[in-house]
Amino acid sequence: MKEFHDLADLSGEEIQDLLTLASRLQTNPEPRALAGKVLALLFMSPSLRTLASFQAAMVRLGGGSFVISPNMSIHGLETRPGIVMDGMAAEHIREAVPVIASYADAIGIRAFAERRKLEDDLADLEYNEMRRLCQVPLINMESAINHPCQSLADWKTMDDLGVAGQGGKFVLSWAYHPRALPLAVPAATVHMAAARGMQVTVLRPEGFELPDAIMQKARQAAEASGGSINETDDRAAAVAGAHVIYAKSWSSTRHYGDRIEDQDLRNDLDHWRVDDSWFDTADTGCHFMHCLPVRRGVVVTDEVLDGPRSVVIQEAQNRMYAQMAVLHRIMLQP
Amino acid sequence: MKEFHDLADLSGEEIQDLLTLASRLQTNPEPRALAGKVLALLFMSPSLRTLASFQAAMVRLGGGSFVISPNMSIHGLETRPGIVMDGMAAEHIREAVPVIASYADAIGIRAFAERRKLEDDLADLEYNEMRRLCQVPLINMESAINHPCQSLADWKTMDDLGVAGQGGKFVLSWAYHPRALPLAVPAATVHMAAARGMQVTVLRPEGFELPDAIMQKARQAAEASGGSINETDDRAAAVAGAHVIYAKSWSSTRHYGDRIEDQDLRNDLDHWRVDDSWFDTADTGCHFMHCLPVRRGVVVTDEVLDGPRSVVIQEAQNRMYAQMAVLHRIMLQP
Amino acid sequence: MKEFHDLADLSGEEIQDLLTLASRLQTNPEPRALAGKVLALLFMSPSLRTLASFQAAMVRLGGGSFVISPNMSIHGLETRPGIVMDGMAAEHIREAVPVIASYADAIGIRAFAERRKLEDDLADLEYNEMRRLCQVPLINMESAINHPCQSLADWKTMDDLGVAGQGGKFVLSWAYHPRALPLAVPAATVHMAAARGMQVTVLRPEGFELPDAIMQKARQAAEASGGSINETDDRAAAVAGAHVIYAKSWSSTRHYGDRIEDQDLRNDLDHWRVDDSWFDTADTGCHFMHCLPVRRGVVVTDEVLDGPRSVVIQEAQNRMYAQMAVLHRIMLQP
Repeated sequence: MKEFHDLADLSGEEIQDLLTLASRLQTNPEPRALAGKVLALLFMSPSLRTLASFQAAMVRLGGGSFVISPNMSIHGLETRPGIVMDGMAAEHIREAVPVIASYADAIGIRAFAERRKLEDDLADLEYNEMRRLCQVPLINMESAINHPCQSLADWKTMDDLGVAGQGGKFVLSWAYHPRALPLAVPAATVHMAAARGMQVTVLRPEGFELPDAIMQKARQAAEASGGSINETDDRAAAVAGAHVIYAKSWSSTRHYGDRIEDQDLRNDLDHWRVDDSWFDTADTGCHFMHCLPVRRGVVVTDEVLDGPRSVVIQEAQNRMYAQMAVLHRIMLQP
Repeated sequence: MKEFHDLADLSGEEIQDLLTLASRLQTNPEPRALAGKVLALLFMSPSLRTLASFQAAMVRLGGGSFVISPNMSIHGLETRPGIVMDGMAAEHIREAVPVIASYADAIGIRAFAERRKLEDDLADLEYNEMRRLCQVPLINMESAINHPCQSLADWKTMDDLGVAGQGGKFVLSWAYHPRALPLAVPAATVHMAAARGMQVTVLRPEGFELPDAIMQKARQAAEASGGSINETDDRAAAVAGAHVIYAKSWSSTRHYGDRIEDQDLRNDLDHWRVDDSWFDTADTGCHFMHCLPVRRGVVVTDEVLDGPRSVVIQEAQNRMYAQMAVLHRIMLQP
Repeated sequence: MKEFHDLADLSGEEIQDLLTLASRLQTNPEPRALAGKVLALLFMSPSLRTLASFQAAMVRLGGGSFVISPNMSIHGLETRPGIVMDGMAAEHIREAVPVIASYADAIGIRAFAERRKLEDDLADLEYNEMRRLCQVPLINMESAINHPCQSLADWKTMDDLGVAGQGGKFVLSWAYHPRALPLAVPAATVHMAAARGMQVTVLRPEGFELPDAIMQKARQAAEASGGSINETDDRAAAVAGAHVIYAKSWSSTRHYGDRIEDQDLRNDLDHWRVDDSWFDTADTGCHFMHCLPVRRGVVVTDEVLDGPRSVVIQEAQNRMYAQMAVLHRIMLQP
């Protein structure tokens, strides 16, 4: 594997291979596998799970990592091409990225969504700019429009829990949040569940429809896997019989990049908070999923989060095992 | 060992076992002992010695660690239970702690004292809240009212120096400092010296008496070990014949949580600064101890710190060896 | 090797030994060489390449490191001797440095130039103050007046590229930058190129002459190696036939420490920007070198940086290999 960029780049067999390897490394540690190997971790925005789980993954495989974050260690990185650098930033990503990568056997990059123009974020402009600068295998640690590490971990979590692929009913629900958040997780998640062969419903209020390009990509995955994709704002219909309710907030796509209009729209939507009643007509064993971090009492109630339906900690832990598989494949079979 | 929370939880034999192991690892390195093992380090307040010595300890044992600090890597962690998270904090410790722990074979947590209500800090509220959330062995890296890593290191330092347990005279002295500091180190230290069988004197000005609960716990340890506990504001009597003068500043307990009253009281106490004259009637070989960081010229004079009595660097170095023993026991015999 | 402080401390044979070892470790990894060994990294100012390359170097050799930075982890370190510490800083380097070193098999320190009085920076006051406090082997990770890691990497880069020592023509050129920068890299670079036996020209505008002590040290190295040293403000003469143009900005030495006068002088010098025309009369294979970070469009044009002459990424990568050699020698043959 030369890059871990998007689950959609992988065949079903390749995904299965990673999941099998992740489970094997979970039960049969390989503390010498990556001896002397280095992972570079470049964060353009703050992180907890990704920061911790990648470092832990490298230690468990006998290698190591280093972290570079514009806030922690340097006076900002310039990203704009062709600029005369007479301002604050002392270094351009055109040097920083290849230099950081030159110290490593693989590099993980977290970029962020500008959230100005939807087409720019759908094109993953900043991430792809840095991607072009990498001369070693690259792992997408979340870009403007993708989060394949989260998706692989979520897939594994559903496997671990015995949630069916074919016939499993997966609801991705928008939830209220005081801020406009990126599309990376919902875009990755709807594709992942579709690629897993599930009956996927995107439940969201008007104005928060997922972009056509995202839905189209998920539909193609569903066609190939035998799954299906629906979109609705009717919660009762969506959650009936669900095996998974996956909550996540995201920006208004109707007013993408317009903070005022987005805020106006979301202000009336604070009842989109997952509580126990959402599970009344769901499958008895229905699980609650969320990628974290989650705002308690805002996105979801304490009752749900602290109750037996919640598998958010398992999802987070599976980040480490999924990434161990990716690192193993990318560093040993490049 | 499932937890390293308080020296008082350990029997004399268990403490001796850790000290023996610490010395063995100091002279006979085991660079493969913890291969593939991960230590999570969660700091709710800044650190130098603890941050460095735990990372170094894991490397020396062949494993690794990662650091999470609210200031470094995330936008603050919410600690209040039952809160609606519509403010700045994006993550609650109820998710953060189990997630971080899920990546690790053991977790170290540094909490801090609120210094509002004495009973809350004596109950170690914040630390115990996080403690309940850990599903892997936990190491107390300093809580509101305890610092067992420092105490184990200080015990080893006195062993290394040949300071007697039975019959050794240990003075824990309050010292001036411009700010009101937590009770963790004095509380842990008075217990440690008592558990070591020493004749312990707490020397402090009026208004800075250690809380009854702390003194009572130390007295019980002294009774079991053959040591003794006294408290006084008479310096001449306290330091006569002392084998160790251990300086530390702490908050006024009479005005705990009241910054103005505490300041009023301490303003007249800046002569509580350890200088050479303190050692005039002490034992010839009397050592000066301090947990660091220390304010030069404020808590203690340069003459004492730079002179032959000071063993503060040895104490700090023994943090690493003591912690290596704790990590060895907690990760290999959980 | 007990210290890596200045290339001038090493004989030609010792430098060759390090370069040979660096190349060997580049092609023949030794992922167990430094198992259980710890490198302490103390940064008094921010860093990217040094931070990343030293951590990566230790992982590649099977050991590990920890990082202490005043901005990241502690509330500032006091450096002034004899001070009464009743201000913000809670810890003095007199404790911090030996404590940090006590956890490690070697320590790397990055100090910074005060840029107040030239003689103080030439004497490397702050670095030497910390140097005296280290009880383990010390690596200079850039001080006020030196940067031996950069110089060793640059030497290796020229070797890798086949740039001749004897007879090679090396131009160190001042370049425009909006801020007054330290003398560490130019001072180290002029000496390195001289010690390599090259014909060295320092090209700089009036007011930016390198200090006599620096030039004298380089001249001595040139005499011993068969190289030569010249200084000029005539660019056409300097670059004719050059094999390397090494750009770097530095403070005015005429107005050292005087920000206003320095600014006045440099304001008219923004045409000192390396562009393709600089290479018109140079050797056909002339390389562009810079230690990074570099301000694009200010110090050098995008055309040069992105063109085939630029070897800045190779220089940065060689930091890691050069430092692996230093760590290998310092930790295994102390």
